[in-house]
Order: sequence, then structure tokens, then C-alpha cells
Amino acid sequence: MKVQAFAALAKSKPLEAFEYEPQPLAPHEVEVKISHCGVCHSDLHLLNNDWGMSRYPLVPGHEIIGTLHQVGSAVTQLKPGQRVGIGWQADSCGECEWCARGEENLCARAGPTCVGRYGGFAQSIRVNSHFAIPVPDALASEGAAPLLCGGITVYSPLRAHQLGPQHRVGVIGIGGLGHMALQFARAFGCEVTAFSTSADKEAEARRLGAHHFVATKSPEGLKRVAGSFDFILSTVNADLPWLDYVLALRPYGTLCFVGAPPSNLSVPVFPLLATNKRIVGSNTGNTAGLREMLQVAARHGVKAQTERFKLDQANHALARVARNEVRYRAVLEV
Amino acid sequence: MKVQAFAALAKSKPLEAFEYEPQPLAPHEVEVKISHCGVCHSDLHLLNNDWGMSRYPLVPGHEIIGTLHQVGSAVTQLKPGQRVGIGWQADSCGECEWCARGEENLCARAGPTCVGRYGGFAQSIRVNSHFAIPVPDALASEGAAPLLCGGITVYSPLRAHQLGPQHRVGVIGIGGLGHMALQFARAFGCEVTAFSTSADKEAEARRLGAHHFVATKSPEGLKRVAGSFDFILSTVNADLPWLDYVLALRPYGTLCFVGAPPSNLSVPVFPLLATNKRIVGSNTGNTAGLREMLQVAARHGVKAQTERFKLDQANHALARVARNEVRYRAVLEV
Repeated sequence: MKVQAFAALAKSKPLEAFEYEPQPLAPHEVEVKISHCGVCHSDLHLLNNDWGMSRYPLVPGHEIIGTLHQVGSAVTQLKPGQRVGIGWQADSCGECEWCARGEENLCARAGPTCVGRYGGFAQSIRVNSHFAIPVPDALASEGAAPLLCGGITVYSPLRAHQLGPQHRVGVIGIGGLGHMALQFARAFGCEVTAFSTSADKEAEARRLGAHHFVATKSPEGLKRVAGSFDFILSTVNADLPWLDYVLALRPYGTLCFVGAPPSNLSVPVFPLLATNKRIVGSNTGNTAGLREMLQVAARHGVKAQTERFKLDQANHALARVARNEVRYRAVLEV
Repeated sequence: MKVQAFAALAKSKPLEAFEYEPQPLAPHEVEVKISHCGVCHSDLHLLNNDWGMSRYPLVPGHEIIGTLHQVGSAVTQLKPGQRVGIGWQADSCGECEWCARGEENLCARAGPTCVGRYGGFAQSIRVNSHFAIPVPDALASEGAAPLLCGGITVYSPLRAHQLGPQHRVGVIGIGGLGHMALQFARAFGCEVTAFSTSADKEAEARRLGAHHFVATKSPEGLKRVAGSFDFILSTVNADLPWLDYVLALRPYGTLCFVGAPPSNLSVPVFPLLATNKRIVGSNTGNTAGLREMLQVAARHGVKAQTERFKLDQANHALARVARNEVRYRAVLEV
């Protein structure tokens, strides 16, 4: 049976109704009937072929929640009817060093959900069962969908750096990623500061878990917190005064990027070596991390704050995401 | 009794004979009769006031080996006659968070050996006993002196990043710091690669512990090792093609600076976040690290390769260090 979806037929074209015949279900694959799919900034990057990796027709969508409809003959743990989530990645080689380590997201032959296969702006999807993650009952699908990419992107570095109640954590950018980062950092017990150019987000940032709010429109805000933070997570795709953020770190502090600024990062090395500071990047997360992150979200009430759209409003939703108008995450209801 | 020393009386002046009356020995201080003192690149920076922190008359020298002559009334563990070493730091507040953690090198009130006090180009020196480090008998003083600053500078990051036989480590710059880094990286069991613009250093690099040598005069050398290293230690004070070194790292790899390039580090963030890479700085080390490093050096035969000068040849030694002519570390014999 053909799959009903929405696809861009070429670079930067609007989505249109599109149907495709799925490949036969392989023994290790599952078919998921999609109920919700988040709209991520990286869908926009893919539609514009910003990363030179896109293939068209392109069906976006990699923050998927749905119900297992069929499981392949080799799948023994997942059962039809079970609710699962699918994120950025739908496949990996399963054979390389990184797959062996459970770091499938670093597999050189990783299969992104929307590249070379059709994504989640659709009625259903077939993926490697390894990448269909059981969703805890306590999580509502709409608020959980964005956890599958945005959520794991901010959860992974907080977890990898073993953050806890002894740490002071800053989150740059209170948007699609940042509003989940505040909640997770709070769940880890950290003292949490939100950095935002939008002073009107202060109340919301505090409601989401921030203890402190620094308005960064004026440079004084940042200078006042020099030497304060153990970890600063940058969720934005903008060029910021990175040296000021390096100076906002305490000795041994880390500035971690999960968003890529358009220009090069340019900072003097001396402040890094004077007090053992670190600049790091973090790439989404692996399937073990996805499972753990969903459990943590269920236990600590972490969820995306969403705006809901119907699947056939996908172009409208994408336009609002592109204009940073959504507070904070768009989700399509299929 | 006055201390005979060599001092620069003003910025960038040559050293001249200088004598000073030491402060009375405080209860927690020791007086060390100096036998050897290494010449470090940072002595040149201090003499030129490159860091804006110098005070004149300036007696350089912070890679000191000598014998305890007197100990203050509160010193119970160190005994006269014992051989000790003194590095970059001669004092700290002893009260702050970082001192409490044993990270005295991060103390905001740290007392560098040659700033605001007179350093090791002298017959003797008085320092806080906490910073007089016992030297294992197996270490000869001349080869050990440079370990006190140069050695700990490269030992600390290798140790902090828990490097071992599973790791592939690169060392950029085979000079005063790099030639000790090769030896320590080998002692940690790593597979070691030397990066150098001087192709004629290959045989020496291999003798010092390198398994591989990459000549970096041509960019092909670096491109051929893309994706190879877990850890790359940059010991140089030069502007290099840092992106090529970032790309030479494996996923989760670290580019660590112990030398500060004159220009800003400028790299795109995307390669960092695509594969969880890290750029970090490392600042000398603490006293626990100094003790451990000297023990490791004694057990594994790590020592500086030195050129020996008499104390009154200090200007000549400094000039050779400034021209990068010393292979690999100048030591003054007092």
C-alpha cells in the first residue's frame, strides 16, 4: 500500500502531497503508523540543502511518534501496537567501531531519517528496529515528539559532562532547543541561567527551570557574570561574542555547541590555557541515550512546549519555524 | 646574607649581576641553595613583559633544582640537605576553593616564582614549603630541572585526559616542551606521532618516543592523517592551520593547547559538533601533579635533553632559547 506523505520535489520548493511505494519490510525493520512529527530547524536546512547532503523528493520529519504496525521477521522485542519514537537517525551499519560502542550517531554510514529515505511528514515509515525507541506511557505524544531530536541534542551533552547539583549551567538561546535544555539542566539539579536576547522571555525561562536570566542585548549582562559557569550550552545558530562566553566560565568550564554559528568561532587561546577551559561540540545522541532521555523526561515531567498543526499545514508550520515565531516547537498531527 | 642573582632592571634589558637582601624566612618557608635552573620560553615573555604582569628588577628562572638549606619553624616534613624542585609557582593563598581542591595553579592569588619575587637565576631562593617538591634520587638534576615547568605543562593534560595504550596521540612541535611530551606520551603507552615543520627532527623524535613522524611543511602530511588521533597536544606559539588539526582528530578527539598562538584560534564549529570534538587549554599543573610527574619521570627515564650553561652565561642561554636554537632545553648551572 502506498504511503501518503508531503515532499519537496527540489531544493527550497514548498512541500506538496506525495505518495510512494515503500520497500518490502526487511527482517530487522519495523513499520510505524505516525501520529505526531515535530518540525526541527534541521528540516529547514535539509529542504534548502544547506549541508549539501539532501536528496529529492525530500520528505522531512525526524521527530516521530507513532505506533508499531508491523515488525520484521527478525524483530523479537518490539510488538505491534507499541508506541515508539524515531529521531534523526533511522539506520546505521551495525558493524563499525562506533556501532560496536553503542555510538551509532557517529557511524560513518549512519542513515539519517530524511536523507536517502522518506521521513516523518507522512502516514507511516519503515526503519531499522534498533532506531525505534519505546516511549514511556507517562509522556504525551505531542510533547514527546520534539524530544526525539531536539531533546536528545541538549540532553546528551549535559549527561556526557556529568552535570549535577554542584554545577552552574548556562543555556544560550531560549527557543526550540533551549527551552528543553533549561528543563533537563534543572532535572540534573544544576543551578540554571538562561541567556537570551529577548528580555520578554524571562518569565517563561524561569517557569521552564531557570534560576537566573541574563538579557544579552547589552554586553553588560554578560560581563557581570564573568567567571560564573561550569558549563554553557549554546543552542543558537548565530554569531555571538564567544570570548565573552569563554570569560563567563569558571576554571575548567566548558562552552558546548549544539548549534553551529554561520561564521568561524574565533577566540584567543590564552584564556583557555590560563584556566583549563574547554570548547566542545556535541552531536545529537545514541539510541541508549534516547531511551534514557525519554525515561528521565517521563520521571521529571520534561516536555516540549508545542504549537500543533495538521500534517497538511506543514508548509505553514515550516514558515513559522523559519521565522522563529514558534514558542517553542511545532508538531504536526498526522 | 645577600643573594647573588642575575636580573633585568627594566623591560627587555639584558640581565646583569644583581644582589638582594631576602625577606626573613617565614615559618612556612624554606630556603633552597640552587644547583640548576632551566631556561623557559616564559622567562623570555616575562623579560619582555609580554603578559603585562612583570615587575623589575626581574630575576627570571622557575625550573629550579637545589638543596634545602634552611626550613622555617612550621615546616616538619622537609629537612635541610634534601633535594627539591621549584616550578612556575612559589606561593598561593592556601584558602580559596582552588587551593582547597589541590589546584593551587588556579588560585587567583597564586605567586609566580619570578613575578613580585626573585626567581631562580640566583644562588638561592626562599619559597612557601608547599611548592618545594622532593626530587627522586633517580633523577639527575640537570635533566630534571626543565621538568618543573616544561615537564609538568605537558604531563598534566596527558594525565587529565586519562590517556593510555588505547589512544593515538599527536604532539605538535618538537622543541622544549614537545620533546618531553613525546617521552611522557610514550610512558602512558600511547601510540605517538610527532608533528614538526623540521623534517630533520624525525630521527630524534623517534628516539624520544614517537612511533610516527609527520612533516608539516607541506599540507599533504596533515591531510593524510585525517581522522586519526584521539588527542593532539600543541606545544607551539605559532599560528598553524588549526582546522587541519581538528580534522586530524577522530570522533571525541581533543586538540589541547599548552602554547598560545599569537592570533585568535579560528575554526568552524560544525566539525566539532558533527563528531563530538573538543578544543581545550591546559595550565601547567598543581603540586600533587608535580610530585607524581617526577616519580613517573624517575621510573620511566623521562628527562629533558639539555644544553648546559654557567649562570653568568644566562644572557647567551636566553638568546639561544629566543632563536629556538637549543635542542631542547637550556639549563644554567649555578
